Amino acid sequence: MKSTPSSLNQIITAIGPISNDWLQKARSRTAQLLMPPRALGHLHDISERLCAIGQTLTPGMDRKAFLVMAGDHGVAAEGVSAFPQEVTGEMIRSFLRGGAGINVLAAQVKAEVFVVDMGIVPHLNPVDLQGGERLAVVKIAAGTRNFTKGPAMSRPEAEKSVLAGFQQAAALFDKGIEILGTGDMGIANTTPSAAIGMVLTGAGPDQMVGRGTGVNDQGLLRKKDAIRRGLEINRPDKSDPLDVLAKIGGFEIGGIAGAILAAAGYGKPVVVDGFISTAGALIAQALCPTAVDYMFAGHCSEEPGHRIMLSHLGLRPILDLGLRLGEGTGAALAMGIMEGAVRIFRDMATFAEAGVSGAGS
Amino acid sequence: MKSTPSSLNQIITAIGPISNDWLQKARSRTAQLLMPPRALGHLHDISERLCAIGQTLTPGMDRKAFLVMAGDHGVAAEGVSAFPQEVTGEMIRSFLRGGAGINVLAAQVKAEVFVVDMGIVPHLNPVDLQGGERLAVVKIAAGTRNFTKGPAMSRPEAEKSVLAGFQQAAALFDKGIEILGTGDMGIANTTPSAAIGMVLTGAGPDQMVGRGTGVNDQGLLRKKDAIRRGLEINRPDKSDPLDVLAKIGGFEIGGIAGAILAAAGYGKPVVVDGFISTAGALIAQALCPTAVDYMFAGHCSEEPGHRIMLSHLGLRPILDLGLRLGEGTGAALAMGIMEGAVRIFRDMATFAEAGVSGAGS
Repeated sequence: MKSTPSSLNQIITAIGPISNDWLQKARSRTAQLLMPPRALGHLHDISERLCAIGQTLTPGMDRKAFLVMAGDHGVAAEGVSAFPQEVTGEMIRSFLRGGAGINVLAAQVKAEVFVVDMGIVPHLNPVDLQGGERLAVVKIAAGTRNFTKGPAMSRPEAEKSVLAGFQQAAALFDKGIEILGTGDMGIANTTPSAAIGMVLTGAGPDQMVGRGTGVNDQGLLRKKDAIRRGLEINRPDKSDPLDVLAKIGGFEIGGIAGAILAAAGYGKPVVVDGFISTAGALIAQALCPTAVDYMFAGHCSEEPGHRIMLSHLGLRPILDLGLRLGEGTGAALAMGIMEGAVRIFRDMATFAEAGVSGAGS
Repeated sequence: MKSTPSSLNQIITAIGPISNDWLQKARSRTAQLLMPPRALGHLHDISERLCAIGQTLTPGMDRKAFLVMAGDHGVAAEGVSAFPQEVTGEMIRSFLRGGAGINVLAAQVKAEVFVVDMGIVPHLNPVDLQGGERLAVVKIAAGTRNFTKGPAMSRPEAEKSVLAGFQQAAALFDKGIEILGTGDMGIANTTPSAAIGMVLTGAGPDQMVGRGTGVNDQGLLRKKDAIRRGLEINRPDKSDPLDVLAKIGGFEIGGIAGAILAAAGYGKPVVVDGFISTAGALIAQALCPTAVDYMFAGHCSEEPGHRIMLSHLGLRPILDLGLRLGEGTGAALAMGIMEGAVRIFRDMATFAEAGVSGAGS
């Protein structure tokens, strides 16, 4: 796979299904392990899919990284978030310094954290910033436009955001990263995510639109109204994922979709975080349904529509802890569980090795 | 707290509630952390309860241990398990050698694994066994009696099993263990656990009796029938937890109940594993309702009655991964999540430290 493809089409055609042969080989090994058949439930599904993705019985999870994709949103002007837009840039500084949630939980699983300015309002210069070597400035534009008044971005910008996300992830895989986690930062970004969720899953606003970082009842009404107006004025074409992304999406959501496609193209697992990351996953799936084979759903968030999105993707979330922070935090916690799954697969004795009697009836 | 109490009463009267003051102090710190209010959901409940248990804002989770309580069951003769009874002893050898599920997952969270022969059929001599220094032989008796024909054990044996479990855990806390996980091994032990669950939660057999390690339809019918006969012949008194344990319980279940009471008595957190451990937790709660404050439910298992037990205890499981192995495996995975909760509480920057704007409306 080339790390700098010139078009989305080139990316998508290079993605193939995971190996059914390796899946079967992995299942055979699980069946020999020292326990009643598949007694560790979902852990086996995880380890076996990792085997099928990597075409190996020793899937590697030592080198982990997170890409926190950041973007600002014109729709913030509609009063859809509890936080001011400045927080997006302020939080990027925190990710680089290392005091945010994703830094803490990534450190626990020994994952590196990289941040991408996909299109935030302020101009941050990496050389001026503590930890700036972990910031890539892509900046498709200084925030999207307010989608209640027209498309959030142009179609070329939408494609550019996906390609840029692809390239950021591809560069990590080229450096030897074995598993990628997605993360997001962007004040107001549950609003475009919910809008994408409604269009691509067919769910209604009451199912899909939640309180995000914690808007009050008035804020929730403003959010639903902004989405209603955005869908009315833009009429995104649900059969055309780039159209959906352009009209009601966000730069970081496109970036996440691209990073996921890179994982699929490189044959690497990707752990999708919460509501915003899953909106990116919906775009990635709509562009290339096979990409889902490479996705793991880190968790089911507190945002009510998340469960609907995950079910649309056919993914079972690893965790369900009422998280609603984003940044990649749920994916980081889930990586610990996935590592447990791999350890079981790799380190548990077989019945034969342990000299233990098998099951009767 | 004395590590060798002479009676259950002495244990129970020494158990006090957790500190509401420290819970409030912990909540105040959470409120200052760099995220929307309580955005990491259940993680905050975990870290704050750990603070309240330890009366500290820096709860320790570095020194972890598992007690795998093993016992055999006379009711195995009724054909209620898919595995032969020899497996109990064989698995103990595996726990000591280190190739079983609990060894693998405990290693991931750097927890030590200790095994207690609470009453298995074979006579294992620690000095003859590889890893035997991690085996304690308590052996109330060489397996319980078949409870379809009368009580599984005498009332003094039931009390002895709880006291022995207490002492095993107390010895670990005396050595500096900061958090304990419970585990179990015992062919047929989902049968007494389901019987205890039915008596103490009031649930019926179809809700509470499951396939355990994987019995077929015939086995499931035999299991329900054995429990029905056991309850009929023994008529356990649900207001008298020792009577329930004696008539339809198991030595390892009593041991688990005792270990949980020790955690509560020593003011330490205890992570309860799956169905069998939770049967022990039900006994502990019935003996001393306050003990629940010190319990964390590691996971909700695939065994259908487990959810009912947890709801009876008022505990929200940390994980829900379709596990049904026991041994402590779900508790070990959950300890990783609890460690994440503690890291967030301890290591995340505050809004003030990070210089980030707070929430508006």
